[in-house]
Amino acid sequence: MSGNHFAAWMESVQHRTETALGTILPDAAIAPQRLHEAMRYAALGGGKRVRPLLVHAAGEIAGADPERLDRVACAVELIHAYSLVHDDLPCMDDDVLRRGKPTVHVEYDEATALLVGDALQALAFQTIAEGRGNDDPAVQLEMVTLLGRASGSRGMAGGQAIDLGAVGKQLTREELEFMHIHKTGALIRAAVLLGAQCGAPLAPDALARLDRYGKLVGLLFQVVDDILDAQADTATLGKTAGKDADQNKPTYVTLLGLSEARTLADVLLADARDAIAPFGAAAARLDELANFIVHRRF
Amino acid sequence: MSGNHFAAWMESVQHRTETALGTILPDAAIAPQRLHEAMRYAALGGGKRVRPLLVHAAGEIAGADPERLDRVACAVELIHAYSLVHDDLPCMDDDVLRRGKPTVHVEYDEATALLVGDALQALAFQTIAEGRGNDDPAVQLEMVTLLGRASGSRGMAGGQAIDLGAVGKQLTREELEFMHIHKTGALIRAAVLLGAQCGAPLAPDALARLDRYGKLVGLLFQVVDDILDAQADTATLGKTAGKDADQNKPTYVTLLGLSEARTLADVLLADARDAIAPFGAAAARLDELANFIVHRRF
Repeated sequence: MSGNHFAAWMESVQHRTETALGTILPDAAIAPQRLHEAMRYAALGGGKRVRPLLVHAAGEIAGADPERLDRVACAVELIHAYSLVHDDLPCMDDDVLRRGKPTVHVEYDEATALLVGDALQALAFQTIAEGRGNDDPAVQLEMVTLLGRASGSRGMAGGQAIDLGAVGKQLTREELEFMHIHKTGALIRAAVLLGAQCGAPLAPDALARLDRYGKLVGLLFQVVDDILDAQADTATLGKTAGKDADQNKPTYVTLLGLSEARTLADVLLADARDAIAPFGAAAARLDELANFIVHRRF
Repeated sequence: MSGNHFAAWMESVQHRTETALGTILPDAAIAPQRLHEAMRYAALGGGKRVRPLLVHAAGEIAGADPERLDRVACAVELIHAYSLVHDDLPCMDDDVLRRGKPTVHVEYDEATALLVGDALQALAFQTIAEGRGNDDPAVQLEMVTLLGRASGSRGMAGGQAIDLGAVGKQLTREELEFMHIHKTGALIRAAVLLGAQCGAPLAPDALARLDRYGKLVGLLFQVVDDILDAQADTATLGKTAGKDADQNKPTYVTLLGLSEARTLADVLLADARDAIAPFGAAAARLDELANFIVHRRF
């Protein structure tokens, strides 16, 4: 695998994630059909699959079997997919476009979108519990716990709540960082650790380095998101551009300005690469991924 | 314990569930404070705690330790609490009163109610994974999977979706039953099995009997709910009465008439008691609980 070009590796992980998700999601012919169809609409056929890529890249460090990684990657991606569906609802960001398609509540209706998110979350936990991510059921239980923490009130959902409370407010850089460490960071960080847990046990300092990488990449992802949102147009982004500024939401760009936000991204990238440098060649994919996250155009 | 009067046992389980939930839910002083406060508002201080009662009563059959049962009971109750918060939202049942208090989106706001439900669901899975419901982590993983299935698109959330699709339609009795087996039944059934899984392993036929009891009690609960909804006033019920008929939702009462719905409840009760009769005195609490569910007044 290590000889492959990064773009080919990325495409292969995206492809196998799509296939695995297609199997895990109930068929649209199974009752309740409309719900299952909408769940598939929400979770399939789009997205960069950044979290599955991180699961697989971190799994390489621990020598994890790719098929184990698929199930865990899907569990994380199902959490991400549910959060997008709920985040797009009228009572939240009220967005009509996602990955270039109408959002779930636009394509279906609000009640269905609510249930789609709820059911995707349940499926995520079912998937990680059934997934044989690790032969040791005690480790697998730890993985369920980790995903629960990363998704809940002290992780992703908590970050959304902080975000809600921040609209129209002037945040300090520390407050903005606190929000993003929860909102985007927690699940990205969990993706890295969960990938590593699918393989041979790592020494505590190796895990700590991976965790540091995950934390930095989570922030990096958000800084770049803010830069792209401030610059791009809707067609390139596949979702409504410039929304954060319109909604008077604090971003790294509104706080620091575009130039300093770019500098911050460079610093975070360098730090993330430093954190995993001791792994050597085994961390090549993680290194390339961090780089990809900075230089992506959508 | 078996010498206790049923009412005293019920009160003690309700009390210990409240205490355990109070510990499991993050303190309202922890950030994000408003979200944590709203989660506590949603999950504490009310409800009959039918599902925790079923967990404890089924646990007695398997000789399970009450403290293990507490954690599992809380996990199930957190799923139930999240479903109520989402079910009350304007895009679903649009209800303003629950357990005699304003619903979460009325007391807080819609976005917060959405996140409260999301975060309670994540906490439920975290709780059952961390809960040491069983010393064998493989059994505990099965419990996570069971809870996931019971909550998701082929369980509770799926039942809600079927319910949405049924508004204004004439359902057959089979279709109504299919809806309720999912919407209310799946989680009640899971509560019974999860309680049993906290103790010594049961023989397959004993588990099958418990599962049959759970399925019957789930239906029974719904039939009685429909009868109460058709009869009671809002003050007694603690939630808006007569809503189902107002919203043109099919119920057992609209389908069968009040008298036949009461006969159905009697038949289901008798069948549920038969299913657990072979357990003898060990099933006393389950037997009393089924009886309580039929004769409750709220």
